[in-house]
Amino acid sequence: MTERRVTFLSRGSRFSTEADASFLELARLVGLSLPSLCGGRGKCTKCRCQPRGPVTEPSALELEMLTDQELARGIRLGCQARPLGEVELDIQEEVLDKGGYVELAVEPEPLLRKVCLELPPAALHDDLSDVERIQKGLGTPIRVGLETLRWLPAALRQGAFRVTATLWDPGDGVTELLAVEAGDTQDRAYGIAFDIGTTSVVGYLIDLFSGKEIARSSRLNGQQPWGADVLSRASHALEHARGVTDLQTAIVGTLNQIIADCSASVDPRHVYYMTAVGNPIMHHLALGLTPTTIALSPYVPVTRDGLSLRAADLGIALPNAQAYFLPLIGAYVGADTLGVILATGLDASGEIRLAVDIGTNGEMALGSRDHILACSAPAGPAFEGAEIRQGMRASAGAIDRVRILEDVRVWTIGDVPPKGICGSGLIDALAQMVRRGVVDEGGRLLPRSDLEGKLPPKVLERVVGQDYTWEFVLSWDPYVTVTQDDVRQLQLAKGTILCGVRILMAELGIEATQIAQVCLAGAFGNFVDKRSALGIGMLPPAIPPDRILGVGNAAGQGSRMTLLSKSVRRRAETLARRVEYFELSKHPRFEEIFIDSMSFAR
Amino acid sequence: MTERRVTFLSRGSRFSTEADASFLELARLVGLSLPSLCGGRGKCTKCRCQPRGPVTEPSALELEMLTDQELARGIRLGCQARPLGEVELDIQEEVLDKGGYVELAVEPEPLLRKVCLELPPAALHDDLSDVERIQKGLGTPIRVGLETLRWLPAALRQGAFRVTATLWDPGDGVTELLAVEAGDTQDRAYGIAFDIGTTSVVGYLIDLFSGKEIARSSRLNGQQPWGADVLSRASHALEHARGVTDLQTAIVGTLNQIIADCSASVDPRHVYYMTAVGNPIMHHLALGLTPTTIALSPYVPVTRDGLSLRAADLGIALPNAQAYFLPLIGAYVGADTLGVILATGLDASGEIRLAVDIGTNGEMALGSRDHILACSAPAGPAFEGAEIRQGMRASAGAIDRVRILEDVRVWTIGDVPPKGICGSGLIDALAQMVRRGVVDEGGRLLPRSDLEGKLPPKVLERVVGQDYTWEFVLSWDPYVTVTQDDVRQLQLAKGTILCGVRILMAELGIEATQIAQVCLAGAFGNFVDKRSALGIGMLPPAIPPDRILGVGNAAGQGSRMTLLSKSVRRRAETLARRVEYFELSKHPRFEEIFIDSMSFAR
Repeated sequence: MTERRVTFLSRGSRFSTEADASFLELARLVGLSLPSLCGGRGKCTKCRCQPRGPVTEPSALELEMLTDQELARGIRLGCQARPLGEVELDIQEEVLDKGGYVELAVEPEPLLRKVCLELPPAALHDDLSDVERIQKGLGTPIRVGLETLRWLPAALRQGAFRVTATLWDPGDGVTELLAVEAGDTQDRAYGIAFDIGTTSVVGYLIDLFSGKEIARSSRLNGQQPWGADVLSRASHALEHARGVTDLQTAIVGTLNQIIADCSASVDPRHVYYMTAVGNPIMHHLALGLTPTTIALSPYVPVTRDGLSLRAADLGIALPNAQAYFLPLIGAYVGADTLGVILATGLDASGEIRLAVDIGTNGEMALGSRDHILACSAPAGPAFEGAEIRQGMRASAGAIDRVRILEDVRVWTIGDVPPKGICGSGLIDALAQMVRRGVVDEGGRLLPRSDLEGKLPPKVLERVVGQDYTWEFVLSWDPYVTVTQDDVRQLQLAKGTILCGVRILMAELGIEATQIAQVCLAGAFGNFVDKRSALGIGMLPPAIPPDRILGVGNAAGQGSRMTLLSKSVRRRAETLARRVEYFELSKHPRFEEIFIDSMSFAR
Repeated sequence: MTERRVTFLSRGSRFSTEADASFLELARLVGLSLPSLCGGRGKCTKCRCQPRGPVTEPSALELEMLTDQELARGIRLGCQARPLGEVELDIQEEVLDKGGYVELAVEPEPLLRKVCLELPPAALHDDLSDVERIQKGLGTPIRVGLETLRWLPAALRQGAFRVTATLWDPGDGVTELLAVEAGDTQDRAYGIAFDIGTTSVVGYLIDLFSGKEIARSSRLNGQQPWGADVLSRASHALEHARGVTDLQTAIVGTLNQIIADCSASVDPRHVYYMTAVGNPIMHHLALGLTPTTIALSPYVPVTRDGLSLRAADLGIALPNAQAYFLPLIGAYVGADTLGVILATGLDASGEIRLAVDIGTNGEMALGSRDHILACSAPAGPAFEGAEIRQGMRASAGAIDRVRILEDVRVWTIGDVPPKGICGSGLIDALAQMVRRGVVDEGGRLLPRSDLEGKLPPKVLERVVGQDYTWEFVLSWDPYVTVTQDDVRQLQLAKGTILCGVRILMAELGIEATQIAQVCLAGAFGNFVDKRSALGIGMLPPAIPPDRILGVGNAAGQGSRMTLLSKSVRRRAETLARRVEYFELSKHPRFEEIFIDSMSFAR
């Protein structure tokens, strides 16, 4: 079976992903954009592109909208065509994911430098050891690790004693010789910033001197066979003697796939630095540490410290790279949240900001440069469409927008007949159902009899079922509904988030109106309709929609910023000590606020 | 096939070896002694012992000297019986190899300490990470490596938060947490000092707090399949892509065998430190560094620095141990010579001393606390009986003593009929032959006709052969001779040593009479007859025999001293910079002195 994988080429950089979606969606996923006026409905034909590799057959819409000449040349509509295997595709437009970030540009301030040395060759009358020769050339004492010693003699002689030394200064006063390469390679110094998510892992290959992104790749986390969520993975580690090893090997395999994806662009030997963020369980598993103490009461991590080590010591295929795992904030608030705080600039802001990262779990941080509080709000995966009867990921056929006027109107990704409903569609649907009274304040999907006369007839007839099992039909053909259970799942999820926000506000002693900006991180934040998010009450109603900002993969952005700058790395170390972790359930009014937060009252 | 291996048990310590010799000889090899009055001739019966395991059948001498009851109980004569497989043997007498060392006792001054901590258990209201908990208990910041992090949670919980922390202070200002063990293990802290020889490897298991030797084991260097000498090994590394890996794997295998031998005494997890000395090529190969730059002109090592690393990073089966490889002095004067200088105290002495380590290669150092010069004198293995027609190692049947009076009298190891001649026997034989004029000043074995009337008839008739191929018969039955070629080999070897000594003396501007002590290191130094060594002129004749001291395995002793004491480790680092390496062939009068040194004139 051929693996599905798309690589976009844009201005010399490569962006690859293995997600299943139209090229229009995939470009958006990797932070690029194909032009589109009609929102991916196949009408504007602006998203014409020329994928190279196995793709779906042209749809009826494409046969209609494209000329025979275009079709013969392999021109396709990005919103319609989808990859079936290894595909490459050029994008002229360069719209990297700059939009929305509060803190965007980080001035490169690398932890390493490269020096080209022209050394006198070893001779009978000049018999310094290779290390002494390099030290003499540099004029400074250096520490040399075993791996570098193993390659040093060959590099020196291959380069006829003209070599480039890569020097690493981690800040403990001793300079380390990371690598020695034959000839002048001063222009080549790369790093990879990883964001290790429970579901997917993204790697950004960056030129450490210019800050330019060279390649990007995302892969499904190879730990999938051991469950979709962190607790299933922790269970495997707990119950099997080799559990941690299984999971560590799997995640390192994924990192190595991403490195291989990026290797078309640079030689992995020229990658000298990698950073990684992840939630505490991903962090522990990537390092081969047991996550069981996090998973079981009293929930403590093995360590919260930022960890520096050789990437190769973890089995990562970067022979010369130093690895830095950003510190954790608490047992359930990880380096990913720290990345979000760095990227959204909470710690530098004079105003109060709220950052909410909704992935398979939800974490949030509230504060300013004076004080930051963070908590974990275990919202569960309902916002990603999981545990919803007809829920699905944001891919073709997913209902992603819903409006209820005289009747219900739905939009789907790729404008194809609906197959199910994704997170943003669910929130849209629920917000509309609440607004029209189909769902009451308590979250009950009302019986049709209670709604008679209050809804237009075409909407009313979509309320189907009987006592306790009422459903609301979004689409008759194909038949897609939102059930009472689905509403309850979403209610719990949104209630958890709101409860977290309210408790952090209470702890910080502030009102919702004092929050200058709400940053919604993760894919969710980019796709959700802000008014619908407010409409279901997952954020305090006093927050105006224009203060809500989707900031994309802010955790990954924090990893990138740390990779590029030693100041940001120091900032991360300080932050991990400064951010106060708050365990929601410890709040004296937790139950009351939690129950109250479940309400759909506006 | 059962492996031959003898373990002596003495006052709770274990000393094991796989050499092939009588128990009397084996005890001497591991630094112990069985009582003996007759010198191993089976006459005094003082060496009675009770080996447990497969041994040779009782000899005629034993059947004569031992009672039937003794024989029935397995009592044997140590000078006669030999092991045939795995044998254990108790020795009451404790005579460790203290004799002869200039610098004997090193006050333990460990680089690590163990602290037993009674920590409050993790709880919902006390949710520090495991690392923070340990740090709080210690009251000091610590660095924690990945392996320790992996074991930390289990150790804490297994010990119900009562644990023993092993703290390592390498002197760079940061304390490292080497290990955490459940319960109170403060009394268990061990180290292994290795001496990695080209032929054999010795490991000393030491209690780091008391300095007591717990076990000792010697094994043949597992690199034997790739040649007996360092240059054959280097050739393999040069000519095969995986050559260095082959050789590194082999030597690490040998170290791990030695660790396994010592594991009867302690758990390898309680071994926190290992030191290693070896010649530069053994040093490089053990670390997986290419030895080719040492072996080929212009002969430079990859590094001369002392190297600290995790033993496990080399594949050494000591999961918690820090490894320290002592620094090298030059491309052909290694950490073994540094060990000899440490053990003989050259660097602390007010008088001038000469240390000569004769193994498969010869290295020497001359000087005092003011200035030390070292060189390599590539004497070759003739002194070990190699490249000698009937040469053999010092084992049963080897002629080890020769006297020429009215006839030739020879003594053999184990007092059995002669099979060949070992190094000390060769030097004895040659010294006697020179004294009696059988060999002239130039090293020519004179024709019988030239000797007629000058030798007793029984001695004269031992000169056999013809032009250029004269031989001297040491034993008629079995027939053992010393050939002209043998004399030439020894002449080259002794000339090389003497040339080295004379050039170092010249460089230092001293006379032989100013040398207060000559320390002969290695097995050779222990067994050679000092007068014979002077008799063949391998040392300047002006040195009185009573200034010559056999100091045993001084290189290994230097490794032990470094293991025990951080002061000695610092001394080693300083010494490596202070000792001046002198390349003999660079001396302007090298050829003249070398040729002159080959003379047998007294």
